[in-house]
Amino acid sequence: MPLDYTYRVRQPHRTGQLAAVAGAIAEGGGLIGDVTTINVGRESSIREITLAVEDHDQAERVVELLNKLEGVEVLWSRDRALLRHEGGKLVISSTRPVRTVQDMRDVYTPGVARACVAISDDPSLAGELTMIGRSVAICTNGTRVLGLGDIGPVPSMPVMEGKAVFYHQLANVSAMPILVDTKDVDEFVETVVRIAPTFGGIHLEDISAPECFEIERRLIEALSKPVMHDDVHGTAVVTLAAALVACRHAGLTLEEEVVGQIGLGAAGYGIAALMADAGAKRVVASDPNPLSHERARQKGIEIADLETVMEEADVVVATTGVPGLIDPSLVREGQVILALTNPYPEIEPEAAIRAGAAFAADGTSVNNVLGYPGIFRGALLSGAEEITLQMKLAAAEALADLTQESELVPDALDPKVHERVSTAVRDAAVESGAARMDRAPMGL
Amino acid sequence: MPLDYTYRVRQPHRTGQLAAVAGAIAEGGGLIGDVTTINVGRESSIREITLAVEDHDQAERVVELLNKLEGVEVLWSRDRALLRHEGGKLVISSTRPVRTVQDMRDVYTPGVARACVAISDDPSLAGELTMIGRSVAICTNGTRVLGLGDIGPVPSMPVMEGKAVFYHQLANVSAMPILVDTKDVDEFVETVVRIAPTFGGIHLEDISAPECFEIERRLIEALSKPVMHDDVHGTAVVTLAAALVACRHAGLTLEEEVVGQIGLGAAGYGIAALMADAGAKRVVASDPNPLSHERARQKGIEIADLETVMEEADVVVATTGVPGLIDPSLVREGQVILALTNPYPEIEPEAAIRAGAAFAADGTSVNNVLGYPGIFRGALLSGAEEITLQMKLAAAEALADLTQESELVPDALDPKVHERVSTAVRDAAVESGAARMDRAPMGL
Repeated sequence: MPLDYTYRVRQPHRTGQLAAVAGAIAEGGGLIGDVTTINVGRESSIREITLAVEDHDQAERVVELLNKLEGVEVLWSRDRALLRHEGGKLVISSTRPVRTVQDMRDVYTPGVARACVAISDDPSLAGELTMIGRSVAICTNGTRVLGLGDIGPVPSMPVMEGKAVFYHQLANVSAMPILVDTKDVDEFVETVVRIAPTFGGIHLEDISAPECFEIERRLIEALSKPVMHDDVHGTAVVTLAAALVACRHAGLTLEEEVVGQIGLGAAGYGIAALMADAGAKRVVASDPNPLSHERARQKGIEIADLETVMEEADVVVATTGVPGLIDPSLVREGQVILALTNPYPEIEPEAAIRAGAAFAADGTSVNNVLGYPGIFRGALLSGAEEITLQMKLAAAEALADLTQESELVPDALDPKVHERVSTAVRDAAVESGAARMDRAPMGL
Repeated sequence: MPLDYTYRVRQPHRTGQLAAVAGAIAEGGGLIGDVTTINVGRESSIREITLAVEDHDQAERVVELLNKLEGVEVLWSRDRALLRHEGGKLVISSTRPVRTVQDMRDVYTPGVARACVAISDDPSLAGELTMIGRSVAICTNGTRVLGLGDIGPVPSMPVMEGKAVFYHQLANVSAMPILVDTKDVDEFVETVVRIAPTFGGIHLEDISAPECFEIERRLIEALSKPVMHDDVHGTAVVTLAAALVACRHAGLTLEEEVVGQIGLGAAGYGIAALMADAGAKRVVASDPNPLSHERARQKGIEIADLETVMEEADVVVATTGVPGLIDPSLVREGQVILALTNPYPEIEPEAAIRAGAAFAADGTSVNNVLGYPGIFRGALLSGAEEITLQMKLAAAEALADLTQESELVPDALDPKVHERVSTAVRDAAVESGAARMDRAPMGL
C-alpha cells in the first residue's frame, strides 16, 4: 500500500544542493510532496521532506541514496501517519479553567457536593450538571479492526481515538475510547453495562461478526440509552445515502429496484437490512459463509450466488474485502454499482462503466465519518432511549439531500452537514416517539 | 452549610434602585459578593448579584423580598456551584484539528492502520502513538462520596469530573471518570481489569471501606500499572506533608514523636499506615468500629481509646467526620493537632491553641488536589508498574519542602508545585526499581 514518508535531512547550505537531494529522491522513485525548512545555519540547512513511496523498503532505499550524497545526512525518517499519531490524538480537559481558590471551591469541595446532592435528589439533572448527556463510549475488543483483523484492544486504540476526534470536531460530542479486554460475549456485555452510567450513548466499533450482533442486541435490551454498532449501522446509513444519490444519477428510484448485496459481514448485513427497511423492491444477497444466511433471511433478504445477484440486481453494493471479485462480464446494462472494499474495490468504477453500468463508485468517498457523529448527536439531543430505524433513515435521507450535484456523498469535514444530519435524527426521534426531550443535555 | 447564590435581577434604571435592592438583601440577611451588569436598557437594567446565604430557605426569602420592591423582578436565582457545573466540566477533544482530507487520511483510514500495525508489532509503541500512557481512569461506584455517603455512581459524577479537571490543569494528565455500577467487589475488580488496557493508571475514588481496601489490593495484583485509592493514599501523602510542616513549626521531629490517629476509615487508616512507614516512633489510633482494628494492627498500629490517644500522642490527626469530637480538656501542652473533618473540625484550631497545643490546623488547606496529580504524573513519566511507598514518601517530602514559611501546605493551584512533586515521584520510582523508563509516554 502506498504511504507517505517524512525525512529530516541536513545538507550543505549551497546552491544546487536541494537539486542534488531531489535528484537522489527521484532516483529512488520517491514523489516529493511538502518541503519545510526547519533551520538554516551558516554551513548547513535542515529540511523536512515528505515523499509518497510504495512501501517501507523503498523508503529505506531513499535514505541510503540521500546519505551517499556528500555532506547530506538523513537525521531521521518516519511514516508520516505515525508522526501524526505521536503523543496520541485525544486530550481530556476542563470546559473552563480553575483560576482562583473560589473556582476550586465551586468545582470541587465544598461546592461540588451541592451538584451531587442535586442529582441525587433529581436524577434528570445529570444531563445538565455533568458531561454524561453529551458523551459517548467507543467500545471495542479489537477483534475486527479495519482490514487488519483481530489485533486486540491496545493496537486498535488509534482507530478509536480517530473516531473520537471526529465526534468532537464535527458534533461537539465528547467520545472516550474504551478498550474491553475480552472476546467473550457475556463478559463484554456485562462490562459495558456496568460502566454505561458514565456515558450518554454506547458506540460499538470493530467487533468481529457474528459476536457483534449478539453484543449489540443485548446492550440495546439492557440499556435505556442509544447503542449502535457503527460498522453495521453507521456504514449502512452512509451507504444508503450513497445509493440514493447514485440512483438519482442513474435515473432510478430505490423503491422500484432490486438491490443486490455482495458480502454479508457486519457491514454487508447492515446495508442489506437497511435497504430492505428503506423500501427496496427486493434485496438479494450472496456470501460464501452459510452462517451469515439465516440472519439475512430473517430480515426478508433472499440468498443467492454472486452471479444471480449480479443478474437480478438493479443496484449492487459489494463489501467483501476481495479486490477484483466482480468480473466485468457480470455487469448488466444500466446497473448502479458501489464496490466499497478499500483501497482496491471489487471492480474499478471505470471498468464497470465500460461494461455498461449506468453509475459506478468505489469506497474512497463512502466514509462512515459522515454518519455516526450526527446520528449520535441527534440521539443525545433528543434524549432518545434507542436509535430507531426512523432515525437511521432520516440520517441517510439528510445526507442524500445534502449531496452536491456531481458528488456521491457530502463533504465529511463540513460541520453544516453534521448539524443537518443531527437535526434530522433528533426530529425523527421525536416523531417516532423514541425521544424524551426533557432529557436534552446542556452543552451539546 | 453556607452557600453562594446568584440572582439575576431586573430593576428600574434609576438612581437609588441598587441601594433599594441592596437594602432588601440586607434585610434578608444576605452578604453581597460580586455584582455584574448584564444589560442596561432605557427603562431597566439587568444585573447578576451573588450573595453568601446560610441555606436554600434564606436564599428563597431574599427572592421574595426583592420581588416585593416596585419594578424589581428576580428573573432566576441559583446556587452558584450549580451554575458553575452547567454543561458538565470536562471535554474530550483532539490534540490537533483535522483540517484537510490529507489530515483525515493520516488520523483515520488509511493512515491509522499503520499506527495500529506498528503497535501490534511492538506493543511498547502504544505509549508513543496513543493517549494511553498519559491517561488515568478515575473509577468509582459512588458508595462513599465526600461526606454524602452512598449516593451511587451517577450523582458522584461531579466529584469525578472535578478530580479530572485538576489532573489536566495541574499535571497534563487526561483523566476519564468511569462510573462502575456495582457494589460487589468481584464485579468491580473484573470490570476495571477488563477496561484497564485503555488507561496508563487507575485512580480509585470514593469507594466505601472496607471494600475499597480489597478492591485496591486485587487491582494492584492484577495490573502492571499504577493503581491508587486516592482517599487512602493521596490524602495520606498530603496529611504527612502537613504533619511534617506542622512539626517544623512546633520544633518537633516526626521520627522522635508518637503519632495519634483518631478515626480509622479509608483516610484515617491510610494516614496512620503512612505515618508508621515514614518512621514515626509509634502510631496509636482509635476508632469506635472494631472491624477497623485488625487491619491497623497488622501495620503495627496500636489501638487505644480516644483519651489514651490524646494523652500519648505528640502529633494528633483526626479524620472522624464528627465535628467537635475533641474536648479542649484532652489537649496536651505542646501537641500538634490536625483536625481535618470539613467544614467543621473535631476541634477548632483556636480552641486547641488556647488549650496548650503548640500548633493546630483544620482541614481547609489540607486538600488532596495537592497529591494525586503529581503522584500519577510522576508514576506515568517513569513507566512505573506500581506506586511504591518510596514514591509516596517522596511526594510528601516534596510537598513539605515546597511549603512557605508561614503555611501548612503549598499552593494547590501553583503548577510548579505539581511539577516538583511529579519529578520527585519519578525519581523515587527509578531509585526504588519500580520504573521502566523505556515506557515513558509521549505528550505528557
